[in-house]
Amino acid sequence: MSRNKYQFPMKVGVVLFEGFELLDIFGPLEMFGMLPGQFNIHLVVEGSNPVASAQGPRSVIDDSFASAKQYDILLVPGGPGARTEVNNPTILDWLRHASQISTFVTSVCTGSALLAKSDVLDGRRATTNKYAFNWVTTQGEKVRWIYEARWIEDGKFFTSSGVSAGMDMTLGLIERILGRESSEQLVNCAEYEWHSDSSRDPFAVLNRPNAGTKI
Amino acid sequence: MSRNKYQFPMKVGVVLFEGFELLDIFGPLEMFGMLPGQFNIHLVVEGSNPVASAQGPRSVIDDSFASAKQYDILLVPGGPGARTEVNNPTILDWLRHASQISTFVTSVCTGSALLAKSDVLDGRRATTNKYAFNWVTTQGEKVRWIYEARWIEDGKFFTSSGVSAGMDMTLGLIERILGRESSEQLVNCAEYEWHSDSSRDPFAVLNRPNAGTKI
Repeated sequence: MSRNKYQFPMKVGVVLFEGFELLDIFGPLEMFGMLPGQFNIHLVVEGSNPVASAQGPRSVIDDSFASAKQYDILLVPGGPGARTEVNNPTILDWLRHASQISTFVTSVCTGSALLAKSDVLDGRRATTNKYAFNWVTTQGEKVRWIYEARWIEDGKFFTSSGVSAGMDMTLGLIERILGRESSEQLVNCAEYEWHSDSSRDPFAVLNRPNAGTKI
Repeated sequence: MSRNKYQFPMKVGVVLFEGFELLDIFGPLEMFGMLPGQFNIHLVVEGSNPVASAQGPRSVIDDSFASAKQYDILLVPGGPGARTEVNNPTILDWLRHASQISTFVTSVCTGSALLAKSDVLDGRRATTNKYAFNWVTTQGEKVRWIYEARWIEDGKFFTSSGVSAGMDMTLGLIERILGRESSEQLVNCAEYEWHSDSSRDPFAVLNRPNAGTKI
């Protein structure tokens, strides 16, 4: 239990952009948000307008890059929009800076392409969605990409496999911060069957023929 | 395969209120939204302002009760806010009417308390979160409540167990509408381990001592 190392509530900064994947953020935010008083959630965008997810629903924004605070935990989703954002120097510069000053940096699905392109994963181990593996890995040639993993922890960096894996990774991060008991209590309440072994990846085999398909 | 019975895109109407549970809606919406052109999502509230989830994040609203359309699929979340809304005649009246004209009516977690209180589940089999079972069942004494189930299908009504079970139920509904293959393709892409047996409920036993705890 390393609880005393952190100040609560911890600030979670979620970077959004047009075409983000819904569950990449709201799966993890359900887990963070279920623990009253432990985590405060801030949705952050480049501008100040609500952005639409790939699935349609739009979120109200809390902070813009210009007004952004220091976040204890940074969360970067994937989704079709990530394919565009890897060419947006503004988001990459912001991620580079925000990653440096965050205690933890997390990504879900192709969100690791954005972190990789902003160079913060250089020399680190990381993973991503198996469907998008071939594309994501071209975004950071100095990253030590791991194909078979539900999620990867390397120091303060937590990168998860596709979409749903973000929930499992977040529970792993909550375990790191608050201890195993908190994660286990939380999954009971959310009736979630936690895939808690970060090295078990049934989709690594299942989706291998599709590696590189556009998602 | 009964695909030809329906007109696509089907309209999914999601009823929101202050204090709804994030994953209750965004889990199902990820599944609906991942199939391009098949489902259009509309977030609906009593007024016209964004409403805050129990976890904090707010959603931009598409329709108010006054401007609401006919939805093919109605989705009712739970969350702490449902404890208040069971005493709100406006939402109960609206649900009663909207349920009558929808092809499918679905609820996640304590969302079934709202459906029960609006009388549309009378004589139907239904379920809910095991943590909240004792409270929910008092909201509809004519409902045939089932304690042990991941989700329950009774005609056009699909009610799921707690929070995460909404994703499994939605995949069951997509199977009903588009066939098993669509659900299986979708879970591979989302790297989701589908709990596809609606009668298997590990939380029925695990959470029995907590039945009735406030959630």
